[in-house]
Amino acid sequence: MEKKNLEYLARLRKAMSEHGIDATVISGTDPHQSELPPHHWRGREWLTGFWSGNGTNGTAVVTADKALCWTDSRYFIQAEEQLKGTGFSMMKEDGPDAVDLIDWLTENMKAGQTVGIDGMTFSISYTQRMQQELADNDIKFNDNFPQFDYIYPERPERPKNKLFIHDEKIVGETVNSKMERLMAEVKNEFANAALLSALDDIAWATNLRTAGDIAFSPIFVAYLYINPSRKVLFIDREKITDEVAEHLKKYSIEVEDYDKVIDFVRQLPKETRLLLDPAKTSRGLYDNVACTPVFGGSRLARLKSVKNSTMLKNLATAMEKDGVALTRFFMHVEKEFPKGELTEVGLGKTLRDLRLADKSCVDESFAPIIGWNGHGAIVHYEATEETDATISGNGILLVDSGGQYTYGTTDITRTVALGDPTPEQRHDFTLVMKGHIALAMIKFPEGTRGAQLDVLARQYLWNDGKAYYHGTGHGVGFFINCHEGPQSIRLNENPTPLEPGMITSNEPGLYLEGKYGIRCENLIVTEEWKTTEFGKFFRFDTMTLFPFDVNLFDTSMMTDEEIEWVNSYHDMVRSRLTPLLSGEEAKWLEEKTRHISK
Amino acid sequence: MEKKNLEYLARLRKAMSEHGIDATVISGTDPHQSELPPHHWRGREWLTGFWSGNGTNGTAVVTADKALCWTDSRYFIQAEEQLKGTGFSMMKEDGPDAVDLIDWLTENMKAGQTVGIDGMTFSISYTQRMQQELADNDIKFNDNFPQFDYIYPERPERPKNKLFIHDEKIVGETVNSKMERLMAEVKNEFANAALLSALDDIAWATNLRTAGDIAFSPIFVAYLYINPSRKVLFIDREKITDEVAEHLKKYSIEVEDYDKVIDFVRQLPKETRLLLDPAKTSRGLYDNVACTPVFGGSRLARLKSVKNSTMLKNLATAMEKDGVALTRFFMHVEKEFPKGELTEVGLGKTLRDLRLADKSCVDESFAPIIGWNGHGAIVHYEATEETDATISGNGILLVDSGGQYTYGTTDITRTVALGDPTPEQRHDFTLVMKGHIALAMIKFPEGTRGAQLDVLARQYLWNDGKAYYHGTGHGVGFFINCHEGPQSIRLNENPTPLEPGMITSNEPGLYLEGKYGIRCENLIVTEEWKTTEFGKFFRFDTMTLFPFDVNLFDTSMMTDEEIEWVNSYHDMVRSRLTPLLSGEEAKWLEEKTRHISK
Repeated sequence: MEKKNLEYLARLRKAMSEHGIDATVISGTDPHQSELPPHHWRGREWLTGFWSGNGTNGTAVVTADKALCWTDSRYFIQAEEQLKGTGFSMMKEDGPDAVDLIDWLTENMKAGQTVGIDGMTFSISYTQRMQQELADNDIKFNDNFPQFDYIYPERPERPKNKLFIHDEKIVGETVNSKMERLMAEVKNEFANAALLSALDDIAWATNLRTAGDIAFSPIFVAYLYINPSRKVLFIDREKITDEVAEHLKKYSIEVEDYDKVIDFVRQLPKETRLLLDPAKTSRGLYDNVACTPVFGGSRLARLKSVKNSTMLKNLATAMEKDGVALTRFFMHVEKEFPKGELTEVGLGKTLRDLRLADKSCVDESFAPIIGWNGHGAIVHYEATEETDATISGNGILLVDSGGQYTYGTTDITRTVALGDPTPEQRHDFTLVMKGHIALAMIKFPEGTRGAQLDVLARQYLWNDGKAYYHGTGHGVGFFINCHEGPQSIRLNENPTPLEPGMITSNEPGLYLEGKYGIRCENLIVTEEWKTTEFGKFFRFDTMTLFPFDVNLFDTSMMTDEEIEWVNSYHDMVRSRLTPLLSGEEAKWLEEKTRHISK
Repeated sequence: MEKKNLEYLARLRKAMSEHGIDATVISGTDPHQSELPPHHWRGREWLTGFWSGNGTNGTAVVTADKALCWTDSRYFIQAEEQLKGTGFSMMKEDGPDAVDLIDWLTENMKAGQTVGIDGMTFSISYTQRMQQELADNDIKFNDNFPQFDYIYPERPERPKNKLFIHDEKIVGETVNSKMERLMAEVKNEFANAALLSALDDIAWATNLRTAGDIAFSPIFVAYLYINPSRKVLFIDREKITDEVAEHLKKYSIEVEDYDKVIDFVRQLPKETRLLLDPAKTSRGLYDNVACTPVFGGSRLARLKSVKNSTMLKNLATAMEKDGVALTRFFMHVEKEFPKGELTEVGLGKTLRDLRLADKSCVDESFAPIIGWNGHGAIVHYEATEETDATISGNGILLVDSGGQYTYGTTDITRTVALGDPTPEQRHDFTLVMKGHIALAMIKFPEGTRGAQLDVLARQYLWNDGKAYYHGTGHGVGFFINCHEGPQSIRLNENPTPLEPGMITSNEPGLYLEGKYGIRCENLIVTEEWKTTEFGKFFRFDTMTLFPFDVNLFDTSMMTDEEIEWVNSYHDMVRSRLTPLLSGEEAKWLEEKTRHISK
């Protein structure tokens, strides 16, 4: 199939020349800084030919004679391949050969030239640094160059999917209560109104969801304005059903056209101190804010990240449903494996079908990562028709997947041996599990940040000269995004303390290029432990329900306490899932949760 | 003895009224932001009556009707006591009842009033926030109110101690080489000159030292200006001996009067891009900078923190000398203890004498903390005639001390049982040691920060509902300050990665109010371990040489690996110290380093 990207690039260069733009920077996201933007805002993928079902991280730069696309180490192999013949070359965002995009601009452009961007698709934070550094080098900055308006006639529309109400009984909190708590935080930031751009914040605040706007997340495209006397949802009206209209009326939320948000912020009176999250709000919108802006936002994100007891109870239900689907899935793998005909793509379809068989499961929470042997070592591997592997012989299968249940969002990774594992594989798996267990068992005083705990999951690998470089834990939404902030458990500093009710993943791993990948992931929730003379202490409760592969443990490397943790976790999994399984399934699970010992 | 502080306070209020000052903020430090300022700059101690031999952290605020002195939790008990009858009340800088000093000012002053400070004694960083917040509240700011010039006629002079040369053979680097490396870092900060204010930076750069300017550190009062063609040391000329004058001449370092630095920075040409460390440079000096300031400085501090192989070899010698002194000290404690006449103050004197018996030991590196039982639970306890305890009965003795050897600076804490330890004491001691050992044994990839490793030392305490809140590790200078940056191993984030050659302490602890304190401290140096397919890995090498109290271990709580670490550390201590000891001493040490087992 011939690639049309060279033609698109020619169109873009013509538009640049017509608008006096010497270099254009093209965002990989939307006006809401979504991790997975709707297709309407995937112009960068269309232009460069570099794409993925899970949404790709990539930012392109085009000048009269250069066309470059930056991406991160998760995508280096894929981007290199997909960019062939498109006119674009790959640039590295991280790793030893990283080039900073803004530095590249200042070094490769001449004083007096102009950089043009579509300000609606870049955050305030990002453009602040860009504008400053360009100005320092006498390069002009034009943030009103919406490239795709000029060159992309076949651009998909904005998504028009209908909304539905996320049941208050599942959520445990009314919209009024959320709005009151939001306004209290707005006041804590010394503001008197807020404009929310982040789609997960808006879905959370309104108890509304949809399917299809954003891949793998039931959030929808909108803005939300709140002040003590008004709440306005800016949204395409086709999305509002009668039922949703009634819900909005009940909570006195006005509806305005999505595109009216610009006029709205233009007309806000000077006394409005408008809270904007500079990492989530677009520069294009900010350009139109005539009132007094106040930058902040992590306090609002924090409200969403702390789950109440109703949500946790319901998430426990989602975990049971997920455990049942995974039981059926891994039984299928085990049964079919000897025939040597399973494929990564095929298993992805099977897993999806098994999850969606439960009617409360609306979608997967991300494109599953199913990697056999060497493919498991590619951290963000996505099996496609081109890469698909047949699962045969001895090896290690990594399965990272999750579901969007109305009862909550799941995310789990299991690594299983098919055939006989090697001593090296068992050694490495046990190192990863020792880290997983150390994090699962830690108690910590109030105020502790995830970056402080991260090393617990890495220590055994490090002491063996091994390492993984992705985060150990990301925040997880409740029937919203599978990745959410503000908390995390990572190498990098993040000032947010872990609080009771916050859910994160616990997913150490190890990746041996060309050989195999190991990742062991459960979701854990922070909860109160006890108060002593030394202060208030928290601990984690593991919520995910599915056994780790008992064949992969090398118990000679484990302490009694670690072995006891595995056995008691497996006891819990068995007792929670067995009532939901058929006799045959229960018997299979009993075998999979058998006790390990030295 | 009657306190004269009320009289001093009256003098100050008169001076304030004469200069139109409504509130004055009084610094606890000097124009170099020294941790332990010379007595010339201890006006705050003189005024408030709150002091300590180790230098006290405290900042005072005086208004027409209020006199307050802020300090941190290390000093709450001491400050409360010492401030009685002085007219000052204590305010808390940290902990649950903390009050922010700047917030206090903005809340307690009226618009139009004036805050006056001595700008020479506050850093640029500190005054930036103060000035901003006062301006936001329409409060005037006058940074030219040197209180003690008006009210302290008996103020001690600036110290005039003679300098001496720190032998290049010990230091392993010439002044020229250091100056070249400094200038390279100045250029990396896009500056073309630097003014160093931090006294340890200046002592390091010039290979010069003195005794007596600053308690417990051989640094001296000066400023140092460098650009590619000039080096100027601003210093009281009485301090320069003929030998030192020759050393300075050899390295083309000009000498100017200390007080001339202000005129000097006033006359620097506009093209000078002068690097200043905003945390170390005084606001008063900055007010006079007429050229272009560039803020930075951690790159320079980093040069000092990375020790070369000559320094590490010499520090090993200092550690041996320190181990010998401690052997003699703890033998003395053990021999005299049964008589029941030992005191904390008396032991402090004995320890000092034993260290200074070695002619290369110039001073202690801080005022020793010798705490018997409940006193050991006061983290920064300093035994005085008033608090002194007699050491008798069963108990735990905490001894934190160090020496300033020309071969390097030592800092060690040992906690020993006198009489029979209780099971609780052995349990707690073992929790602390498990943390100490976990940190001592960790391997970590290049780029790892101390804050990431800190939890390793705390995890066993936390899992037992216990905690300490001080740092686990501070940087340690080489015959300079016992506390130095930029690296640290703390709860708080610090962006500096640990690098080979950096020395930090490893000092977890536990403090049970009124009962006992435990702290186990060695100095550790970061060194290269090995490079694997996952990157370059570092590890720690423990440099301190003295046994931990084998009677305090509860080996039932320890892994085989931990027990092995203790035994092999004790083997090393014995083999390194024995050749330097008398027969009786060697026999004592052999007993103290006997192997522990389950």
